[in-house]
Amino acid sequence: RRLPGGGTSPTVWSEFADLAREVDHKFEGGVANLGQGFPNWAPPQFVKDGLRRAASEESAGGHQYARSAGHPPLTTVLARRYGVHFSRDVDPFDEVAVTVGATQALLVALIATLDKGSEVILPEPFFDLYVGQVALAGGVTKPAPMTVDGDGEWRLSEDTLRKAITPKSRVLIVNSPHNPTGKVFSREELETIARVVREENRNRLPGDELLVIADEVYKYVCHGDEQHIHFASLQDMNDITLTVSSAGKTFSATGWQIGWIVGPRHLIQPCQALLPYLQFCAPTPMQQALADCLDEADREYEGEPSYYAWLAKSYARKRRVLADALRAACVEPLPSQGGYFVVGDVSNLLELMPDEYRDGSVAADWAFCRWLAAEHGVVAIPSSPFFTDEPSRPLVRFAFCKSDEILGVAAARLKALS
Amino acid sequence: RRLPGGGTSPTVWSEFADLAREVDHKFEGGVANLGQGFPNWAPPQFVKDGLRRAASEESAGGHQYARSAGHPPLTTVLARRYGVHFSRDVDPFDEVAVTVGATQALLVALIATLDKGSEVILPEPFFDLYVGQVALAGGVTKPAPMTVDGDGEWRLSEDTLRKAITPKSRVLIVNSPHNPTGKVFSREELETIARVVREENRNRLPGDELLVIADEVYKYVCHGDEQHIHFASLQDMNDITLTVSSAGKTFSATGWQIGWIVGPRHLIQPCQALLPYLQFCAPTPMQQALADCLDEADREYEGEPSYYAWLAKSYARKRRVLADALRAACVEPLPSQGGYFVVGDVSNLLELMPDEYRDGSVAADWAFCRWLAAEHGVVAIPSSPFFTDEPSRPLVRFAFCKSDEILGVAAARLKALS
Ligand SMILES: CSCCC(=O)C(=O)O
Ligand SMILES: CSCCC(=O)C(=O)O
Repeated sequence: RRLPGGGTSPTVWSEFADLAREVDHKFEGGVANLGQGFPNWAPPQFVKDGLRRAASEESAGGHQYARSAGHPPLTTVLARRYGVHFSRDVDPFDEVAVTVGATQALLVALIATLDKGSEVILPEPFFDLYVGQVALAGGVTKPAPMTVDGDGEWRLSEDTLRKAITPKSRVLIVNSPHNPTGKVFSREELETIARVVREENRNRLPGDELLVIADEVYKYVCHGDEQHIHFASLQDMNDITLTVSSAGKTFSATGWQIGWIVGPRHLIQPCQALLPYLQFCAPTPMQQALADCLDEADREYEGEPSYYAWLAKSYARKRRVLADALRAACVEPLPSQGGYFVVGDVSNLLELMPDEYRDGSVAADWAFCRWLAAEHGVVAIPSSPFFTDEPSRPLVRFAFCKSDEILGVAAARLKALS
Repeated sequence: RRLPGGGTSPTVWSEFADLAREVDHKFEGGVANLGQGFPNWAPPQFVKDGLRRAASEESAGGHQYARSAGHPPLTTVLARRYGVHFSRDVDPFDEVAVTVGATQALLVALIATLDKGSEVILPEPFFDLYVGQVALAGGVTKPAPMTVDGDGEWRLSEDTLRKAITPKSRVLIVNSPHNPTGKVFSREELETIARVVREENRNRLPGDELLVIADEVYKYVCHGDEQHIHFASLQDMNDITLTVSSAGKTFSATGWQIGWIVGPRHLIQPCQALLPYLQFCAPTPMQQALADCLDEADREYEGEPSYYAWLAKSYARKRRVLADALRAACVEPLPSQGGYFVVGDVSNLLELMPDEYRDGSVAADWAFCRWLAAEHGVVAIPSSPFFTDEPSRPLVRFAFCKSDEILGVAAARLKALS
């Protein structure tokens, strides 16, 4: 009952998943689903093998309750890897918390840090579920609108960020690579954010700092020139940052739902304390499987120096395929450097939408996406759930974590529209 | 910060899991861990095979996001099975919600039903984590103390239950088979509870009824004469009951962490609405694996008519083994009919405990359990976390979901004490 819409309106995710299912039979070969961000293929063999091994495990420990804060084989690997990313020792017991996906990691981090009425600053557009999570945690969202530069890049201005900060601000969510825009924040941009946070914290008492939750689930999906930078690795940020990530996007296993929070012990301890009340533990076999995969993925893979390198490269190609298809359909794609998505301006197609789809209860881009799915067999996600108010341009998010075949079908259908 | 102890004191589960690990090396063959309720064996082969098949699944659908409210193959099986239990049609989409274990099912059911300050009636003793969960959901706990009859059976008197109900009562948690006592509520007892609830609801407006959360995770672990009765199947209870259960106890897979809530759609809808904010979905491979197991377990197993029958029978034997061992060690076991545990009165052993263990910061039974683990290599769980105030007798909970070897070692060590 503390959810947006009183918890009665379905999320954009369930609306478009249901719609995709409903209209599937209407189109030859089914709908081309470029909606929610999940690959339409299974994880690579070495990842499935990890789970198969965990499933076959003869020992009790592989199948019974794990430690609530995380199965030690997994927290050990995570601590070692983040130790390298952060250039410091990370303690596997006190500085890691394993969650059921990054979504839960975010919720736990918010509950652990917010007081009733605390403000959470969200660079806008923002991943829509943040809003309900902040509400569940008793907080209030405070958007910090990004603007699109002349070069089409989303930018968070220093001034906008400063203005969003009030004495009640408790958390800033920095999501890079960013969903839905695909923006990968540059070092310079992140350092500007870090500087503003640092300056704010000069005026704060210990324990009352402005904190950062760094949502880095797409960190291995950087397909442009920009490299991923861990926010916590920036100067003075370690002690005030909770880094969130997960296995789903990296291993094409969005249904595995293992996520984590890494940070300094004074921030991780309250997260760990919450976990037994949310679920006694994250599923042990999934944790065990993942513990093996993270390092295995450093090995040479399909001719690339590592699975991670291969992943970035294969998405770089898919991004080009999708962006070209959008251009051919008169949908201008905005630049993107990371993640699974391209956002396109559908102004040119909007006028084709019949009036019965403009029902007024949803934004124009949302109505457009209903029409596109129901009448033209292409599922995409409207951008309006990612904004506080309806965006000034009709922007739609298209996922490219889909087979070339599906991308091709979508391309043909979009092209046929205009 | 809304947790008991401000979220700073570890739960009894992590304290004794840590203690078991710490002192393990001090005892030949390790500690005999009769603490937390998990079997010290792996799940049966057909269960592991289910997960192995799910892991090897070539299709995307087996590894990517499931529907947030539950993977249809699993909700379909659950709906069919509960349809039989409840003698009504159960809708797999609108009347089932899949969660990360029963612990999460309870939290979701509480968040979905409580307003700030709503009271939750807990027959006492109660499973300790309920208290923190009620607090997280914004509610207040209201114990309804059970008493031990002349025959040693725990009873919830009609009068006590009536007195616990106030206009602010929103939920009554009925946990049968009961943790920690092992009580299986008889049909007569449950009907008395149902009658009290029904009468209370005559004075309530629609939407403001006193609801029941039926925690039935041990429903297949009834090892005495008493059969499990689904609370929701009682007269008029269907519309006001959320039934919670999970796979862990039934399949010796406590780490799998798949639970569920079944109930009428007006109560399930708010639960479903919360799920995407807690985690996008419960892990798909675990759900897929379990979808197969539930029906497979109806088949003949090890000479018994079903796996479920075999399970109850094998625990009946283990219960006898443990109860005999306790008696031999001058610990009087209270009767129990279900679940994994025997509660015993350790009065006779308490006087043996050296003074340095009575530190005053914990109840006598808690101190006793620390001593028993640290000095005598037997881990058991104090009962005081299951009570509001320190119980009048020092009761300790011993788990018998352990190999005969471990039960034997524990028996010998307990016997050597007195
Ligand atoms: C709730 S969907 C999870 C995120 C994602 O995959 C998306 O943005 O499509
Ligand atoms: C949090 S422990 C889960 C329940 C259980 O197994 C126990 O009571 O021991």
